[in-house]
Amino acid sequence: MRMVDLIAKKRHGQSLADSEIDFFIEGYTKDVIPDYQAAAMAMAICFAGMDARETARMTLAMARSGDTVDLSSIPGVKVDKHSTGGVGDKTTLIVAPIVAALGVAVAKMSGRGLGHTGGTIDKLESIPGYRTALARDEFLNCVRQTGISIAGQSGNLAPADKKLYALRDATATVDSIPLIASSIMSKKIAAGADAIVLDVKMGSGAFVKTLDDARALAGEMVSIGQATGRETVALITDMDTPLGYNIGNALEIIEAVAVLSGEGPGDLAALCVELSANMLYLAGEDSINVCRDRARRALKDGAAIEKLCELVEAQGGDASYIRDPSKFPTAAATGAFKAPEDGYITHMDAEGVGRASMLLGAGRADKDSAIDHSAGIVLKHKTGACVKRGDTIALLYAADAQGIEAARAVLGAAVTIGNEKPPERPLIHDRIGGNREE
Amino acid sequence: MRMVDLIAKKRHGQSLADSEIDFFIEGYTKDVIPDYQAAAMAMAICFAGMDARETARMTLAMARSGDTVDLSSIPGVKVDKHSTGGVGDKTTLIVAPIVAALGVAVAKMSGRGLGHTGGTIDKLESIPGYRTALARDEFLNCVRQTGISIAGQSGNLAPADKKLYALRDATATVDSIPLIASSIMSKKIAAGADAIVLDVKMGSGAFVKTLDDARALAGEMVSIGQATGRETVALITDMDTPLGYNIGNALEIIEAVAVLSGEGPGDLAALCVELSANMLYLAGEDSINVCRDRARRALKDGAAIEKLCELVEAQGGDASYIRDPSKFPTAAATGAFKAPEDGYITHMDAEGVGRASMLLGAGRADKDSAIDHSAGIVLKHKTGACVKRGDTIALLYAADAQGIEAARAVLGAAVTIGNEKPPERPLIHDRIGGNREE
Repeated sequence: MRMVDLIAKKRHGQSLADSEIDFFIEGYTKDVIPDYQAAAMAMAICFAGMDARETARMTLAMARSGDTVDLSSIPGVKVDKHSTGGVGDKTTLIVAPIVAALGVAVAKMSGRGLGHTGGTIDKLESIPGYRTALARDEFLNCVRQTGISIAGQSGNLAPADKKLYALRDATATVDSIPLIASSIMSKKIAAGADAIVLDVKMGSGAFVKTLDDARALAGEMVSIGQATGRETVALITDMDTPLGYNIGNALEIIEAVAVLSGEGPGDLAALCVELSANMLYLAGEDSINVCRDRARRALKDGAAIEKLCELVEAQGGDASYIRDPSKFPTAAATGAFKAPEDGYITHMDAEGVGRASMLLGAGRADKDSAIDHSAGIVLKHKTGACVKRGDTIALLYAADAQGIEAARAVLGAAVTIGNEKPPERPLIHDRIGGNREE
Repeated sequence: MRMVDLIAKKRHGQSLADSEIDFFIEGYTKDVIPDYQAAAMAMAICFAGMDARETARMTLAMARSGDTVDLSSIPGVKVDKHSTGGVGDKTTLIVAPIVAALGVAVAKMSGRGLGHTGGTIDKLESIPGYRTALARDEFLNCVRQTGISIAGQSGNLAPADKKLYALRDATATVDSIPLIASSIMSKKIAAGADAIVLDVKMGSGAFVKTLDDARALAGEMVSIGQATGRETVALITDMDTPLGYNIGNALEIIEAVAVLSGEGPGDLAALCVELSANMLYLAGEDSINVCRDRARRALKDGAAIEKLCELVEAQGGDASYIRDPSKFPTAAATGAFKAPEDGYITHMDAEGVGRASMLLGAGRADKDSAIDHSAGIVLKHKTGACVKRGDTIALLYAADAQGIEAARAVLGAAVTIGNEKPPERPLIHDRIGGNREE
């Protein structure tokens, strides 16, 4: 088998056989197939696509390209959750404790933030002492003992995906639905998931901008799940404006604690209930409505916040910060972004808000940037609000005044004020998969 | 400027600006742009195409990427000739002496054969003593003194094309009309051509199989010629069956000598007259018909064969082999391919015949294979002939009996015999460019 022939086949619109996909992924992982052939194949896939069978096979081949996590020692269906990334998305910090409090084990490996989106691991590291780098045994023990662990990725999971993603990033081949879908699903499968709830973000702050594209991506991932025996449900959720009101690492922990305490903004709480309910449902519950009720109750009765404290303590963190979030230190410099005129906020570009937060020090411009855990944004108003000139739209937190200035300029471009109240956007646009539901 | 942005632009169907094309080609030549980005760009071009301006700019950028040949010390319009490659194509050996005999200087750099096609340089090296490796000064002196030189490529001509071609070969991005056209034209421009006659081969022995594709390729090259100030004419000629009757290095010299002596097969002679006429026409003659007459006369009156002898002597070769081709040594092993049944030869796959010739030792399976100058095929019949079972269709010449056997098997598959005489195919399918003609 020669890679050049496989590229030609894909270029001419033909499907690749399973053995051909395995040859490509194995050869590329082992550096036998050079980057230039993988780049040509990736571009051919961008144009010619892949059918459902090819995409599923590529997912499995990437999932099996390195270490895989064996969660069989943990009882029950292991349900993972993945968000395609947004601004202010702290749902994992809320959903994982809810689900674990309700008896479904959560063994979650999360990532760090890059660019305008944050990462769960960075957020958790705002809590003094919290250890995100756990050895595999420690991670599994933590799940067995407390029913939950959230740690950084350990081991060499899906190295084919890692290598291919870096190549795609340099060759303008990122935005291809089969390539995105197989990349996400391969990591979840390598991490040991039996079932997967996907939060496909859609809107100005997400890489998927339209409902059609979101449905296509969600459908592709659900179909990979079916083909690989991992029941998968995808929620298509709004990311046209930031999720919740806090953006930044400690700031997002604070907001997550508020929701887990039965307070906190309605959009965020509602989405977390929905995600939790779908995870419970995939773990074996018959009725999604019963799942919703159980999730809401865990927020009200303190079970969820208690589970977060248990998690933090189990991983060496100081849970007193969870019990009293006012202990989190405030940033050195503060400022405000004020409404430049009277009117409705007709649009608040989530990507712009995320970029402003990065400039404040909450995110990374590149992989090696340091982050400031206390930096970020607290929104006072979001899309749809009526403001007067001079009203504070956002409070800004940074290490120095320079960051405040830079963020203010970006927010100026991200926030549009107009005369008419914009139509409300639904929080959840669609749900794909999960056929058991009536 | 970032290469990844240029790839994205092309991927999304946009045109690249001149400065962007220069950035790509210069960066790739200097190893600043890595192979994987060039491969992704090549594949994006295969799908999204390039417009006439982009293709012309890419041609010029590649032509200027290394050394260029300065033919200004040679008087008159320097007309180059290029064939896209076929089986039994010895036209350069005939056309160059005709044109030079008629006073138009020929400074021709030719290549070696690879795979099923032969190369002019290999053929000339059949002549004892003939030197194809000339220093630039020697080459130009030869043209100034005898009006003609045919040598191998010297210097670092169009290195961007060489590098990109090797990459395309490994990434299934060869068959793209703008990429093929710019590759061919960049080498001709770097070699100093003022005007170019292209012989675009079409049919089973050519990489272009259909008239539509041939017209598209020819049109693209003529348009590059216009855009870069090199008057260009393309003849689309038949390569469904081998050209002439001899395939192999010394065997093709022998056939070329026959045509130059006013003998030899009609198809080959007619095509050579047409190519010569177009070269004379581009050199400044007003009427293509007058050019045809002059070319025919040069074959009849001995001027052309005399010019070939002068060329051979000027480059150190023994011209007695041209005056008496029976001096060429015969191959060690001989054999015949005979008609397996009665009927018409309905098809003689030129590529198959070329491959058989390679197996006999006349061509190279890869760049480093040695070739046997006496090996090859002499056809006794071609497509359209009526044969009886056991009639010799081809005489085979090789170093050993093994080569004969291998070639015979390939010819068995390449030659189809049927009951109906196949329709005759025209020798010249079309002529593109050369607008001056009425």
